Amino acid sequence: MAASTQPARGMRDFLPDDVRKREHVIGVVVEVYRQYGYEPLETPAVENIETLTGKYGEEGNKLIFKILRRGEHEASGEADLALRYDLTVPLARVVAEYRSKLPRIFKRYQIQPVWRADRPARGRFREFYQCDVDVVGSRSPLVEAELCAAAGDVLTRLGFADFTIRLNHRHVLGALLRGAGVPPELGGDALVALDKLDKIGADGVARELEARGIAASSSVKLLTWLGVGALQPSARSTDWLDAVEREIDPDERERKGFDNLRDIMRLTMRTSAAPHLQLDPSLARGLSYYTGAIMEIAVADLPGSLGGGGRYDNLIGMFLGEDVPACGFSLGLERILVVMTERGMFPASVAGAASDVLVTQWNAGGAGDALALAAELREAGLRVEVYPDADKLGKQFKYASARGVPFVLVVGEDEAARGEVTIKDMRTGEQRSVPREQAAAAMSAGRP
Amino acid sequence: MAASTQPARGMRDFLPDDVRKREHVIGVVVEVYRQYGYEPLETPAVENIETLTGKYGEEGNKLIFKILRRGEHEASGEADLALRYDLTVPLARVVAEYRSKLPRIFKRYQIQPVWRADRPARGRFREFYQCDVDVVGSRSPLVEAELCAAAGDVLTRLGFADFTIRLNHRHVLGALLRGAGVPPELGGDALVALDKLDKIGADGVARELEARGIAASSSVKLLTWLGVGALQPSARSTDWLDAVEREIDPDERERKGFDNLRDIMRLTMRTSAAPHLQLDPSLARGLSYYTGAIMEIAVADLPGSLGGGGRYDNLIGMFLGEDVPACGFSLGLERILVVMTERGMFPASVAGAASDVLVTQWNAGGAGDALALAAELREAGLRVEVYPDADKLGKQFKYASARGVPFVLVVGEDEAARGEVTIKDMRTGEQRSVPREQAAAAMSAGRP
Repeated sequence: MAASTQPARGMRDFLPDDVRKREHVIGVVVEVYRQYGYEPLETPAVENIETLTGKYGEEGNKLIFKILRRGEHEASGEADLALRYDLTVPLARVVAEYRSKLPRIFKRYQIQPVWRADRPARGRFREFYQCDVDVVGSRSPLVEAELCAAAGDVLTRLGFADFTIRLNHRHVLGALLRGAGVPPELGGDALVALDKLDKIGADGVARELEARGIAASSSVKLLTWLGVGALQPSARSTDWLDAVEREIDPDERERKGFDNLRDIMRLTMRTSAAPHLQLDPSLARGLSYYTGAIMEIAVADLPGSLGGGGRYDNLIGMFLGEDVPACGFSLGLERILVVMTERGMFPASVAGAASDVLVTQWNAGGAGDALALAAELREAGLRVEVYPDADKLGKQFKYASARGVPFVLVVGEDEAARGEVTIKDMRTGEQRSVPREQAAAAMSAGRP
Repeated sequence: MAASTQPARGMRDFLPDDVRKREHVIGVVVEVYRQYGYEPLETPAVENIETLTGKYGEEGNKLIFKILRRGEHEASGEADLALRYDLTVPLARVVAEYRSKLPRIFKRYQIQPVWRADRPARGRFREFYQCDVDVVGSRSPLVEAELCAAAGDVLTRLGFADFTIRLNHRHVLGALLRGAGVPPELGGDALVALDKLDKIGADGVARELEARGIAASSSVKLLTWLGVGALQPSARSTDWLDAVEREIDPDERERKGFDNLRDIMRLTMRTSAAPHLQLDPSLARGLSYYTGAIMEIAVADLPGSLGGGGRYDNLIGMFLGEDVPACGFSLGLERILVVMTERGMFPASVAGAASDVLVTQWNAGGAGDALALAAELREAGLRVEVYPDADKLGKQFKYASARGVPFVLVVGEDEAARGEVTIKDMRTGEQRSVPREQAAAAMSAGRP
């Protein structure tokens, strides 16, 4: 039996159309992130196994792809290496290893694949790209403001208009729970319920809070503060923050959280993200490692998010044995690609043909002329294919048509004698002869 | 004991300066290959183990990184997956899997890492990028000509001038050996010796041929034909081909090889590769899978090559069980990077700072103004960092200097009142105030 030629389970081959789309999105991300002074980092796909184990909890540990020792040790069945599971642990390793070589405030982006032995499902893969930007070494609220601005600029430049940057703060959330009298051990449960406010509404959240054993009085308070009660008109402005803060009488740490969130809001309003910013007190995200602001990008009429992030001051120092302030944002590259494909958001130069022109071969002796003409057109910036054989012209046209190439060039003997080329526009069927030196300009003008 | 924070053995972290250099080279490769109508392909890092085993010989097999089965099967010590060892077997798999979706002539490039459990050494890594371009589905000599032209264009655009594209043909080599009376079983040995002509000279090759048991009469004939004897003046032109062909009286297959090589030479002379092309009858390359033309790019005063390739018509069909014509070229990305770094060939925009401008914070209330100014400058296309804290200005200047940022912007209270900004050129120390709306233009003009 012939071996299967499918990619490994849960992994994908990207054919040319796919790669062009992926590179378009990644290109925009890189362009924007560089304009903000974020710098690129790349780490190996493979890490020493000790670097990864114990970093992702018990469930995460099971999803790590482990690499067998080699040579005489292979029979032992032991693993000494493993595939990268995310880009955060490698960043922490890099910060520890090269601390003296890195700038004091390290603004890095990293766009690379990660591998997880998850059960494959629709939209869930075992190899997928993460697209992270993190700032290590600063506690300034300007860091959060710029991360929101940059992520927003990426989406805007990709063609998204209707997105919202939801912003909240872990300590403000903590204050709400404490102020509402939710027992600390039920805090996580309460957040899971609150996080669903946009999806199931206030009544749904109230029922879920009750089911999770949270007192009705706490539930009412929380939902009121979340702006679905009396405070609704100003629920998504900083007025809301002021009102709730007065009512809760926060402790020192909570008060700093309120101040920090107000600072971030104020600064972000001075960036290009301003029209998209929304204070959203129901935003919870996985709270396990966030220590400050949290943010998430939502698109109208689209479930889920296109990215999210927040401040996590206790994680990047894991290999250094000290706290290192850090704040990051992760764009959901794979999801952005799905949405852009569904919505037809790719420009024609990305979604279209691989070449602008096919140069045909008039006869067997014409291959050299075709190559020379192609070189001239490439000099002018066009993407040019040369048909490799002196097949019948009809077959060469058919090939161009199947490939979606918009222009086909023919240099017959008559044209060659006159120094002309014939250009056929495959979209209109129109055909005309132009002086050879004007061919590139004639086609550039008519490019999609 | 704290865990080691080094990358895994034989693998590398790429810090920002490294990534910028790598992306510059890859960017030029992609730009040129797209102009030729080559299309991008990406395949997963991980393949089913059966896809890879048995494809690289016994030695290659030992170098494959194998991935342990997961879950309850982990204890078995068995591997079901493995890391990609090259980009050719995945291409063969893709050609078999998607044949009906791919164009009849599939021109693909692929630039991705591969993994080999080789003993690490200077310049030899366990994770490294391959940069392959292959044309599948055509036997036209135009394919070879365009591959030479494209690879040459890449090197030219990267700034190499003194390179040679060495060209030879497996069947011509075979004819030389047969014509010189080298016994077929010693053919491989003879080629290994001939391949060293450039390094050890004709005398060295003669000694090595003798040591490998090849008759002196054969050795003399071979070295004469290779142009170090009587034929020297024309040894590297097609005249040489004609002369040797007459003398050898080739069989049918060999004659086709001579014709094919002449066609490729003639066509390549019509491309941008013409000034670099050199017929080199001593070029052998690993002959195991080449079936036609072979080529290699050499740079004057640099040992080894920057890339090479050839025609291999029996390999890509391995999963289809039939011959599929194919011809490819592989640029030595890692080696190109080493040479360009040693020679200082990177443009200032790549080798220089991550940002064009640092916007400072005049006082604690100035962060919002700094962000707004940064947004304006980014709109104008500049790469802008904002210093995140209202530290003393001296500290902010020091940071810019350490980062190599060429311009620092200050908006003090007086300047703000006048609608001006102060620009300091960090390279000259010069400082001047300009109207805020002219700041971007003033710096763009002075950018490195």
